[in-house]
Amino acid sequence: MSAPLIDKYRKMASFDWKKLKAVVEGEEHVRLKAEVVAKMKSEPIFHRDYRVLSREEQREVVHQRWKKIVEWGLFKDPYSDLENFKALTETLEAYDQGTSARLFLHGNVFGAAVKSMGTERHKELVEKIENNEIVGAFCLTEIGHGSNTAEVQTTATFDDGQLVFNCPSIGAIKCWAGNLSHSATHVVVYAQLHVGGKNEGLHGFVIQVRCPKTFQTFPGITIGDMGSKPGCWQGVENGWMEFKNHRAPLSALLNKGCDITPDGKYVTSFKSASEKQSVSLGTLSVGRLGIIAKGMMACTFASTIAIRYSVARRQFGPEKGAENEIPVLEYPLQQYRLFPYLSAAICIRIFQKTFVEKFTEYMMRVMVGEKSEELSEFSKEVHALSSGAKPVATWLGVESLGEARKACGGHGFLHMSRLNTLRDDNDPSQTFEGENFMILQQTSNILLGKVASIGLINTPMSTMTFLNSKPSKFSSWTSDPVNDALSAYRYLTYHLLQTTSSEANKLKQSGKNSFEVRNEIQVHRAVNLSIAYTEHTMIDWVQKFVEDVEDVTLKGVLQKVLNLFSLFLLERHLATLYITGYASGGKFGEELREKLRKAVADVKPESMALVDSIAPDDFILNSALGASDGKAYDHIMEEFRKYTNEQPRWVCDLAQFLQKRSQSSKL
Amino acid sequence: MSAPLIDKYRKMASFDWKKLKAVVEGEEHVRLKAEVVAKMKSEPIFHRDYRVLSREEQREVVHQRWKKIVEWGLFKDPYSDLENFKALTETLEAYDQGTSARLFLHGNVFGAAVKSMGTERHKELVEKIENNEIVGAFCLTEIGHGSNTAEVQTTATFDDGQLVFNCPSIGAIKCWAGNLSHSATHVVVYAQLHVGGKNEGLHGFVIQVRCPKTFQTFPGITIGDMGSKPGCWQGVENGWMEFKNHRAPLSALLNKGCDITPDGKYVTSFKSASEKQSVSLGTLSVGRLGIIAKGMMACTFASTIAIRYSVARRQFGPEKGAENEIPVLEYPLQQYRLFPYLSAAICIRIFQKTFVEKFTEYMMRVMVGEKSEELSEFSKEVHALSSGAKPVATWLGVESLGEARKACGGHGFLHMSRLNTLRDDNDPSQTFEGENFMILQQTSNILLGKVASIGLINTPMSTMTFLNSKPSKFSSWTSDPVNDALSAYRYLTYHLLQTTSSEANKLKQSGKNSFEVRNEIQVHRAVNLSIAYTEHTMIDWVQKFVEDVEDVTLKGVLQKVLNLFSLFLLERHLATLYITGYASGGKFGEELREKLRKAVADVKPESMALVDSIAPDDFILNSALGASDGKAYDHIMEEFRKYTNEQPRWVCDLAQFLQKRSQSSKL
Repeated sequence: MSAPLIDKYRKMASFDWKKLKAVVEGEEHVRLKAEVVAKMKSEPIFHRDYRVLSREEQREVVHQRWKKIVEWGLFKDPYSDLENFKALTETLEAYDQGTSARLFLHGNVFGAAVKSMGTERHKELVEKIENNEIVGAFCLTEIGHGSNTAEVQTTATFDDGQLVFNCPSIGAIKCWAGNLSHSATHVVVYAQLHVGGKNEGLHGFVIQVRCPKTFQTFPGITIGDMGSKPGCWQGVENGWMEFKNHRAPLSALLNKGCDITPDGKYVTSFKSASEKQSVSLGTLSVGRLGIIAKGMMACTFASTIAIRYSVARRQFGPEKGAENEIPVLEYPLQQYRLFPYLSAAICIRIFQKTFVEKFTEYMMRVMVGEKSEELSEFSKEVHALSSGAKPVATWLGVESLGEARKACGGHGFLHMSRLNTLRDDNDPSQTFEGENFMILQQTSNILLGKVASIGLINTPMSTMTFLNSKPSKFSSWTSDPVNDALSAYRYLTYHLLQTTSSEANKLKQSGKNSFEVRNEIQVHRAVNLSIAYTEHTMIDWVQKFVEDVEDVTLKGVLQKVLNLFSLFLLERHLATLYITGYASGGKFGEELREKLRKAVADVKPESMALVDSIAPDDFILNSALGASDGKAYDHIMEEFRKYTNEQPRWVCDLAQFLQKRSQSSKL
Repeated sequence: MSAPLIDKYRKMASFDWKKLKAVVEGEEHVRLKAEVVAKMKSEPIFHRDYRVLSREEQREVVHQRWKKIVEWGLFKDPYSDLENFKALTETLEAYDQGTSARLFLHGNVFGAAVKSMGTERHKELVEKIENNEIVGAFCLTEIGHGSNTAEVQTTATFDDGQLVFNCPSIGAIKCWAGNLSHSATHVVVYAQLHVGGKNEGLHGFVIQVRCPKTFQTFPGITIGDMGSKPGCWQGVENGWMEFKNHRAPLSALLNKGCDITPDGKYVTSFKSASEKQSVSLGTLSVGRLGIIAKGMMACTFASTIAIRYSVARRQFGPEKGAENEIPVLEYPLQQYRLFPYLSAAICIRIFQKTFVEKFTEYMMRVMVGEKSEELSEFSKEVHALSSGAKPVATWLGVESLGEARKACGGHGFLHMSRLNTLRDDNDPSQTFEGENFMILQQTSNILLGKVASIGLINTPMSTMTFLNSKPSKFSSWTSDPVNDALSAYRYLTYHLLQTTSSEANKLKQSGKNSFEVRNEIQVHRAVNLSIAYTEHTMIDWVQKFVEDVEDVTLKGVLQKVLNLFSLFLLERHLATLYITGYASGGKFGEELREKLRKAVADVKPESMALVDSIAPDDFILNSALGASDGKAYDHIMEEFRKYTNEQPRWVCDLAQFLQKRSQSSKL
């Protein structure tokens, strides 16, 4: 093999990747992440190779790593130390989503639920949670209910001053609770609360499920594991739990805003179930914001591994002879397959970071107890956008890993490329906290509600303002592809909103109920509406970020990246643009595709430095194909040589079998 | 959970699924497959569960299963007993592609190469191969060369009456050879043949690599494994092999049409390297035809599991309350996500079966030694179509498994759903025998060649005849969506061919070499051309098959299936249809999408019986979500209960850790 060409490609760039990284991520963030990485590298328990561990082995390793991180004491509340929280989270998520899940599920899901729904009564428990004296799990989902959580079937019945938990059917058995199978001492569990024969609806409870010394489960509780799962999720102990007359003290009820009096009366300060729910609407977005980052991270890994490998891999060239072969990154088709996801890695990061800032502002207002019309609008807008961006980002992420694997050819399929494992790792992000198509309905529902309401649309983050006036059709291209794309998106979103809304009205008038109407407008209409709205906002926010970059060189590079991202996303809506009448005639589409191909080509000289600007440390990346030194084949062979002359025990059996066949043929 | 609804859905169908199965697959094929399945069920070694095996365990199991199949003596040459071959192959492929690969690579790849390139000299070896007295591997690919096999770097140098094999660099090390790591006693290896200081080009050789008793490798040969791989491929021992002055006898040369005289002179009856290559052009399609079937099988598994589960899964209904929940299959969006792949499973099967029939006719003519202009055209057409259909079918297959997994929500991610494992199993079919985008170039190259040649296009399978006259633009929809789709495809293919060709000419005139030209016309042009040509042929052939079905009911059902398949595929080209000017105005696209939604809805009542008509036996399917009794939740819980109260050894460590934290917080 010839000498690696990666440095040659690095030199083609017009900019310094470290400067770009600092602008996009923030200097402090880059520094803090490097600190966490250094800490992990220094601990043998974080060492890794390309072995595939069994379910048992993987969980033991995660347990040991979790202990180490707890001992470090780095994992804090995001609201008390946001910068450190972000750096640790991103590093852990990139290192292993399974390890990161173990920490999150305890602190940020179980712990957050106890804090937000509990009261003074649960203060001691909160201290134990924060000090990691107990391990918590969050039990909402049941075998029969995932998306439709309002209908979960587990019951908590007030009886003689205690609460009695039951699962009335197989479908009511709790499942998917991380940390539950082996580790959890406590759980937050959701159940229908029955008091005095009346169902008071879904409530949250915190109960102890195991003895912290023997780890035996308490009476009336059966816990088990859900068996094997792909990728890093094999290391996460997702468990199921069945209640049969489990008795817990009354203090198990997480009683913020409601309670049961000792004599068995249910009291609540919520006026309605929907008021109770609306408080949690915006906060549901916390999880989604994290999952958007998973999509970004997937694009990051995919681009890093595949683009670096595409420079190491040389194949057909203009002339015959191996010496004339060129890196496959030179093929326009290879660029077209990979660069859009490189642009996505950068643009989703910028979008997500902006969203987190706006969301933090929103949460601060919620936490100080503000109650205003504007905050309620803010809540809805956050909900609409996070419900759209989570699907868009996670689909792109999984797609990018699939495309990267194929673009790396056969070697991409090796475990040591990590592309398939990463795809497995990221696959569930498409159904976490709501299957993607399911939560897209949240976005379109909110947008459709806006059309129905009277007056101008004016939301706190201004993502819907353009819907107030009818956008104009295509007239001509400008010199700025991003503005062109935004214009097209505004038209598209506006028209999809109009047509989806009028279709809904037609169905309503034909006598369909609202459930049927919502179902029947999804395909081609509401789904596209949600996606178009979301992508418009993503591009819009990244454009604003780029406008504010002072360094002219960096601004120029980011402009190229955003040009590609905008045209790549828009081209997918080309058919719908024609249908909605934004343009007519073949020329528009032909030109859009030409511009897209040009945007791909423009990124090419910058691509290797862009990869350096997003690539995780080699230790985190852990890919034989994607290492920063560009020596893919050396790393592959180094690993291959570990398996030299293996002779499994069954080879004796094979030798005997062949000999028997040989003898019998001679008879 | 309520009683399973699957039988209610079965009763909605207008037809008898067993009759449909017999018409689509052939009665004999259905019967023979059932026989193989019964044989496998009766042998404990074929038993399986949902455990994830280690690399070592999986390979041992594959070895034991392989032995059993060899002992059965079922696996014969396809040309001597095609029906049995097809039934065994399909059953094994559905059961485990890893086991099937072990048999194929020995008999149909290694063995076929020795037979087709060898002579009388290799007769004894052929007998040993057929009698399974030796195990063979096929070594073409090298670390540095996959697609561009002409440039493989391993050398075989004539020296003192022997052949000396060497790998001059890391890149020249052979890899990806199945059966090689542990089992192979012999290999077919490709190397540049050097005689008297001259490189006579790439040749095939057969050499013994290991002692059949000790399984130690011979001097000058190092063999190793490639490490872990996803899915069933973990069970396939893909090895690497490095030569350092390995000496083999002269008889190692597979000397059909060429030879080395004992005094060291190279002689050949081939006039040119391209003549030598053209012989193998059509035969390359054997592998592709098999891989098309993998795509079909992937769609079959995906549809079966997801559609059956979608009836077991009930979620939101028109009214609140769990008793009002409806099966998620009722949602039009769920149908839209799943039914196209159900139609693909059936249509790809019919297309592939037709293709195999035509291909067998072609091979018969090749085998009797026919040399004619028409046969050479046949060869090219087979090559063009197989190079297009392999990508189209395998992309659809992998896509279907991804969509099915997501449509099954979280439970689809469990290992026991099998959807992710199946996706891993099928993932490499997208890069086997040429990365999909790479081999699509074969199709467009042949089509572009047709434009450049003089006279009418008239190929043996008539797949290109419509290119002789300019097809007309869209005028109006007829009552037959399939004919409508075919008209659109003819226009699309014709125009893509014209524009791609004129783009190529323009680039040529601007001074680009043919390599650059070919690279620069791929995106949006040549790629789409190859796909449009292929899909047109698929739909066309299935239409002809359906026309010949006599039973009116079955014909009606198949018509619904083909309507959906045609519109589903065509809709993906909607933007390009606008660009090429087939239609203008939003109405055309809106109507196409409306027709597509209607085609989806039309399949709904038939869907469960259609699934039964394609579904593999439960034993083969092996999915807790997709079992034919529709009791997904019972199967899930049955598996869950196996993991009740697991207490891994590290839980002691966890208990101590928590206690320590608790004590230290009290200090």
